[in-house]
Amino acid sequence: MPYTATRPTLATQPTFSGTPSRVAAKSVDFRASFWNDGNAVGEERAILFVFGLLVSALSVFMILPAIVDFVDGNPEWSVFAWTTAISMFFGIALALGNAHSDIRLDQRHAFLLTAASWIGLSVVGALPFVIADTGMSFTDAFFETVSGLTTTGSTVMSDLDQLPRGILLWRALLQWVGGIGIIVMAVAILPFLNVGGMQLFRTESSDRSDKIMPKASAIATALVVVYGGLSAACAIFYWLGGMTPFEAIAHAMTTLSTGGYSTSDASIAHFASPAIEWTGTAFMLLGGLPFVLYIRMVQANRDWPWRTSQVGAMLAFVAISTACIAAWLSLEDGYAALDALRLAAFNVVSIVTTTGYATADYGTWGGFAVGLLFLLTVVGGCTGSTAGGIKIFRFQIAAMILRRHMRSLIYPHAVFVMTYDGKPLTDDIVRSVMIFIFTFVLTVIVIAVSLLGLGLDFVTAISGAATAVANVGPGFGPVIGPSGNFMSLSDPAKWLLAIGMLLGRLEFFTLLVVFMPSFWRT
Amino acid sequence: MPYTATRPTLATQPTFSGTPSRVAAKSVDFRASFWNDGNAVGEERAILFVFGLLVSALSVFMILPAIVDFVDGNPEWSVFAWTTAISMFFGIALALGNAHSDIRLDQRHAFLLTAASWIGLSVVGALPFVIADTGMSFTDAFFETVSGLTTTGSTVMSDLDQLPRGILLWRALLQWVGGIGIIVMAVAILPFLNVGGMQLFRTESSDRSDKIMPKASAIATALVVVYGGLSAACAIFYWLGGMTPFEAIAHAMTTLSTGGYSTSDASIAHFASPAIEWTGTAFMLLGGLPFVLYIRMVQANRDWPWRTSQVGAMLAFVAISTACIAAWLSLEDGYAALDALRLAAFNVVSIVTTTGYATADYGTWGGFAVGLLFLLTVVGGCTGSTAGGIKIFRFQIAAMILRRHMRSLIYPHAVFVMTYDGKPLTDDIVRSVMIFIFTFVLTVIVIAVSLLGLGLDFVTAISGAATAVANVGPGFGPVIGPSGNFMSLSDPAKWLLAIGMLLGRLEFFTLLVVFMPSFWRT
Repeated sequence: MPYTATRPTLATQPTFSGTPSRVAAKSVDFRASFWNDGNAVGEERAILFVFGLLVSALSVFMILPAIVDFVDGNPEWSVFAWTTAISMFFGIALALGNAHSDIRLDQRHAFLLTAASWIGLSVVGALPFVIADTGMSFTDAFFETVSGLTTTGSTVMSDLDQLPRGILLWRALLQWVGGIGIIVMAVAILPFLNVGGMQLFRTESSDRSDKIMPKASAIATALVVVYGGLSAACAIFYWLGGMTPFEAIAHAMTTLSTGGYSTSDASIAHFASPAIEWTGTAFMLLGGLPFVLYIRMVQANRDWPWRTSQVGAMLAFVAISTACIAAWLSLEDGYAALDALRLAAFNVVSIVTTTGYATADYGTWGGFAVGLLFLLTVVGGCTGSTAGGIKIFRFQIAAMILRRHMRSLIYPHAVFVMTYDGKPLTDDIVRSVMIFIFTFVLTVIVIAVSLLGLGLDFVTAISGAATAVANVGPGFGPVIGPSGNFMSLSDPAKWLLAIGMLLGRLEFFTLLVVFMPSFWRT
Repeated sequence: MPYTATRPTLATQPTFSGTPSRVAAKSVDFRASFWNDGNAVGEERAILFVFGLLVSALSVFMILPAIVDFVDGNPEWSVFAWTTAISMFFGIALALGNAHSDIRLDQRHAFLLTAASWIGLSVVGALPFVIADTGMSFTDAFFETVSGLTTTGSTVMSDLDQLPRGILLWRALLQWVGGIGIIVMAVAILPFLNVGGMQLFRTESSDRSDKIMPKASAIATALVVVYGGLSAACAIFYWLGGMTPFEAIAHAMTTLSTGGYSTSDASIAHFASPAIEWTGTAFMLLGGLPFVLYIRMVQANRDWPWRTSQVGAMLAFVAISTACIAAWLSLEDGYAALDALRLAAFNVVSIVTTTGYATADYGTWGGFAVGLLFLLTVVGGCTGSTAGGIKIFRFQIAAMILRRHMRSLIYPHAVFVMTYDGKPLTDDIVRSVMIFIFTFVLTVIVIAVSLLGLGLDFVTAISGAATAVANVGPGFGPVIGPSGNFMSLSDPAKWLLAIGMLLGRLEFFTLLVVFMPSFWRT
């Protein structure tokens, strides 16, 4: 959600230095050296400058709920007017006070900017919840905002159907902004930070430093256009399916961003419309696929560097999971075939794309369905999409690693070369992917045990941790299941889950490294 | 448990060829080439020869229950007499029919022998349960035997206190034999199969191929002596604590092997004796530490190659976990300080060493304690001990990998050298360890979801899968918790769990590679 509508942030995309590195593998040759005047104060000012721009951008989005509430004759419009004013003033002051013509950052400062932006914007985005007459504590407001910006969709609010439309729109906007933020981050930032094997997705354009800037801007613009266009298309289909224009727009924003906030406590089930459910299924799936794919489809430019082996894998995975669940629903729970298919497809896609809409309390579907859906929670969609989770490409790579490992046990001297989308899987990438999965599981475990320590039951603790870290939304069980709500949890539990959402969204290391003592020891 | 009392099996320890390998990292330089006449039939006959010897050895142990039952005047003695006769005949016939003077094997055949031995001996060891008047199906008998030989300790039998002593002794013997089997395997076999980072524990003696045989024999003999000696000491302490001589011997065998079978349904709680509980705590801990450590202590020979960083880590880990649980028991559940300490120490050690004795239904201790104990389930003890689980040294290495990864994100060009016990952690070892942990988690997940599909509840499915793969014993919840029993599970569930136990005990790959198509394509 940072790096969004404001162009200068794209300059944080690092350039190459030509210096080859002996010690590291080829893929580490990339040097995030960039323009650096050797003046740390300069880089820290650049971070404040970009952060100021991002806050200003977010404040612009706050105008929309103000307008809606004003038109509705709701006095709460003044809340959004105030928070717009406050955050815009703060943002512009920060940006002007630290104005910088060149804001390229080294790797360290790129980490710092990313972590600070997501945390800082979560605080700014929480202001309307705190100031408005919602009775929310700061903890609740922060939880709701983090859940929004990370496109998780866990909510602490209820009686949504009775709330003023302004606050509902703000929730949808947070997810929509967060969605484009993570797409741009996955394309422009993460591949250069060597996080979680994302170095695999460095675009070829990064090899020619003279052309980076125009290309990066073009990519970002194209991404925003495609994202907006698909959201508009989704809204139109929702509207045709029977939603009001407002509901259609709000749900389109939380569908494409695979966020999952709804305008109703009953989520998509509120509309009881197969047409709306299939629309949701289709556009959630579109939100879970890499967005550069769409640019590639509409552009004549066929040499787009993003390759697509994760797309086929994800579609196959979704199809098989849907078939399994549909068969179970039809055979075990006695649903008619088409109903079973619709229910299975919607909920499988909702979980795999980490959206978190619900059309049924799938916790009641019985052992196997629950177990499979629980597993899907951590799988996640494609990288470069708005989906969270471990992500399909990491499973593909993990499967390759496992297979090669077993073959190398049998033939210790054979050399097995692994490639992904034609790129060699270097030791560096293999290690990053394994460490990512390990860290994902470890984070879920640590949060789950902490939640147990706070007195939550087994199912709530485990599924709550998993759903937060994977940015899905609802968990399992009566408390936080698809018919439940995170409201009743204690404040420490909410903070833990919010931290889990941020960790998952920032692929752990982008956030964790900033908290290492050695990060500050330079 | 193979490779036990019979000396020739030790010859399966591979030798070195001097051929250096360019393609692989230094640690893969080791060539499991050995004596190989290029005649596949020869190696397969060697496997049958060793397997025959192992079966004969196991049949010798069957004589002991026969004697006990005969002395007790129990007619079941004839069951053990018969199974002794059958399996001894079978074993000797196999061994004689495939008599081989040189039984060194290449890597492939070492995998095959290991996998075949554990599975085959589980079938042979199940014979007494099937033939005796216990009313057990073959599934139950196989489950009980696998649970015994893998030193897991999950049981499908109840009313233990009423059973003839022969069958109780047989259960204890299975674990005792399985315990020494896994120690010898961890010292002599696994380090040479490159499984799960065990290559780190190659003894220095392997570098001088001329000296391997005498050294290996000496090590194996010393291990058996230490194992027997500690078991005897444990039995004496148990007897002094108030057990009958039979109970003391049976429990000593399942304590040192960290197996956990008891002669009573109530397990150690049956004796209601703090002295016995502290004895159990101490000797379980001894069973979970590397046995070569003890040899090193008693031998003047100080250059024993096994180093001990995992020992300190494990003791620290046990101490901290015990302190946490004791504090929780004392503060939350109102136990007196000393009782809390005793209960916490016993149950933490029982789970971390993967023994699985119970002195309390810790499932009722409340959120945090349950969560922590659940986590301990997969941790496991030291390698080279009788404990299962992921094992301490892999967590140490994983922590190092994580730390290095984060530092390398901040300083992409710095070189961080990792060592463990003074040995460099090569890429090969790093990868093996990560893959092992990944495979462990994956196996638990696959089995848990399959169990859910078979209709088990959430807690039983997850904790059942974890407790089987980690070779602990009891799970959580009313069905398979410390007060429960695996009897009521369906046959498919029992088979799944038995497979999980074997996979965990054989560190996955030793078993899995044999089922790869490419294993047979040579």
